[in-house]
Amino acid sequence: MSHEASHEVPNGAVTFIAVPSGGVPEPGKTLAYTNVDTINLETIPLNGGILVKAVIASPDPGQRAMMTPETPESKESMYPPFSPGKPIRGFSILQVLRSELEGVHVGDHIHAYVPLQNYVVLPNLNNGAVIESFNKDAQILWTAWVGVLGMPGQTAWIAWQEYSKAKKGEVAFVSSAAGPVGSLVVQLAKRDGLKVIASAGSPEKLAWLEELGADVVFNYKTENTLEVLKKEGPINVYWDNVGGETLSAALDAAAVGARFIECGMISTFTEGFVPVPNLWMIIPKCISLNGFIVTTHYPRYLTEFYKTVPALIASGELKYAETVYKGGFAEFDEAFIALLSGKTGNGKVVVVV
Amino acid sequence: MSHEASHEVPNGAVTFIAVPSGGVPEPGKTLAYTNVDTINLETIPLNGGILVKAVIASPDPGQRAMMTPETPESKESMYPPFSPGKPIRGFSILQVLRSELEGVHVGDHIHAYVPLQNYVVLPNLNNGAVIESFNKDAQILWTAWVGVLGMPGQTAWIAWQEYSKAKKGEVAFVSSAAGPVGSLVVQLAKRDGLKVIASAGSPEKLAWLEELGADVVFNYKTENTLEVLKKEGPINVYWDNVGGETLSAALDAAAVGARFIECGMISTFTEGFVPVPNLWMIIPKCISLNGFIVTTHYPRYLTEFYKTVPALIASGELKYAETVYKGGFAEFDEAFIALLSGKTGNGKVVVVV
Repeated sequence: MSHEASHEVPNGAVTFIAVPSGGVPEPGKTLAYTNVDTINLETIPLNGGILVKAVIASPDPGQRAMMTPETPESKESMYPPFSPGKPIRGFSILQVLRSELEGVHVGDHIHAYVPLQNYVVLPNLNNGAVIESFNKDAQILWTAWVGVLGMPGQTAWIAWQEYSKAKKGEVAFVSSAAGPVGSLVVQLAKRDGLKVIASAGSPEKLAWLEELGADVVFNYKTENTLEVLKKEGPINVYWDNVGGETLSAALDAAAVGARFIECGMISTFTEGFVPVPNLWMIIPKCISLNGFIVTTHYPRYLTEFYKTVPALIASGELKYAETVYKGGFAEFDEAFIALLSGKTGNGKVVVVV
Repeated sequence: MSHEASHEVPNGAVTFIAVPSGGVPEPGKTLAYTNVDTINLETIPLNGGILVKAVIASPDPGQRAMMTPETPESKESMYPPFSPGKPIRGFSILQVLRSELEGVHVGDHIHAYVPLQNYVVLPNLNNGAVIESFNKDAQILWTAWVGVLGMPGQTAWIAWQEYSKAKKGEVAFVSSAAGPVGSLVVQLAKRDGLKVIASAGSPEKLAWLEELGADVVFNYKTENTLEVLKKEGPINVYWDNVGGETLSAALDAAAVGARFIECGMISTFTEGFVPVPNLWMIIPKCISLNGFIVTTHYPRYLTEFYKTVPALIASGELKYAETVYKGGFAEFDEAFIALLSGKTGNGKVVVVV
């Protein structure tokens, strides 16, 4: 065994096994924590890039959309399907171990979309950012930086600015509102002076949404969404995290000129396709449906986000919640399944590596 | 019989009989030309408004959407359902017989949305316009003013400006392209430097679309829309006149960031609801679906439209076609049924009263 080889360390990863047969994966059948290879942290070449270690990993509903069969077309998409046998990817907080990249220093924390592996060499930050300077003295827990200050919070803050065209006195409806995206949307809508209707799936989540200022909260599992919206609407802005029947109800209860912010249609994966027979209503009601991927808006908004939102979190003006798994990558599968099943607490599900 | 009564004249109207049972009405079962009442043209009070006579009537697909059951909600909508026993409404060219309205003179031609009746008293122009001054010496046939220069042309021109965000070199797909809206969209897209794919339902229509400059034309009845779009796309702008399966194909063949201009979903009425199972694609592909009613954009665009488009028609830079029914209101039912069946020629179906 050579001297160099003695410095090789195992480099565990959250590995994609196979496309799940149902909407929610079964434990151990889609994801597994495996030692795919080893790495020599001192000698691995950086070629102008950086070597980082994983600090916080983030299970996100969007990852389910990448657990689909690979096709020639899907491979071309912005977020292509995961490849069986390889690490899945996700937004993460990483700490820099070595750097040949300008502006990135050893010890810096960064937010980036990377393979979920203990150690990764990155050629550049891609769409990521060094967040060290926005979190002086680490006053905000690093876990928040994949949640309210990471991709989910960026999604809420950026798309609300880009698409809501919110006017004081209007009515907003937020589905899946106790999640990390929805819970920030609720607060942003209140700050803009809207009446906010928020739905979630448990009494604990509804109680939290009331704390956040939602005017009307309801449990979509026990109440009829359309009836609530007809009574409390019509709605001017719909923040859609789910699609399907809820989208259909929102179209029915929409005001003329309503803006629909299409953040996710998780029901397509967890419940299968549910038709939207009143889609035609977008015409007489002059509704816009806006699909988006937040990272495409980073060039215009990300710097402003980091300059604005962390301060509002630090001061307590904006609130967040999180469900923390402390078992590292070995618990990622469990956390991801809990997330898709809606069986987690309020806010963001995070995994501390 | 009094002297006044001797001046009463019959005032025939296109009357709504009943909601059609199928998508396309049966002759005489939904619309009939009837003498609903009489009118005294000299003495009827105007109360500050105008008395007009119908010159050109316009069967439009949008009227089918108003041949639905009246409900408390639908009565509140911008274009409520027609009431059985009463005249239907439509965009029309009218000539002024008497006027108490400032800026409107006897003999003026106006474009307005009115009940389809030989004589009508209007309190104001509502969303209409005096078009006399835009058509000096009547150089453009008045029939064109309900087509390429009426609501359909305004729809094409205004929504293309508002929603297309067209960039030279992009690809546009226009369905139902040989109609009065689509045929102008094809030309506007070419003027903006796009590659244009256009679909229609007959060889004659396809030949005309080629004359208008479409780069790719295909018969949606004999060719597979998705295959054509995959070969000639991906598409950046989709002008949707039909909805259903065609919309689904357009989503499949859309480029990231595509803009869908949702002008109509006539398939919902003529073929019944066809699900759009890939609606979720608007998220990963960052697609916007923009429903609209053109009249809501009149305040911003209508004056510019009348200042710009008639000159382009008069000079021949923009082309149009029309299928003219010369039998007056008595032929409206026949013209409307032919329109919905796609059995008319190129361009706009008009009825000369």
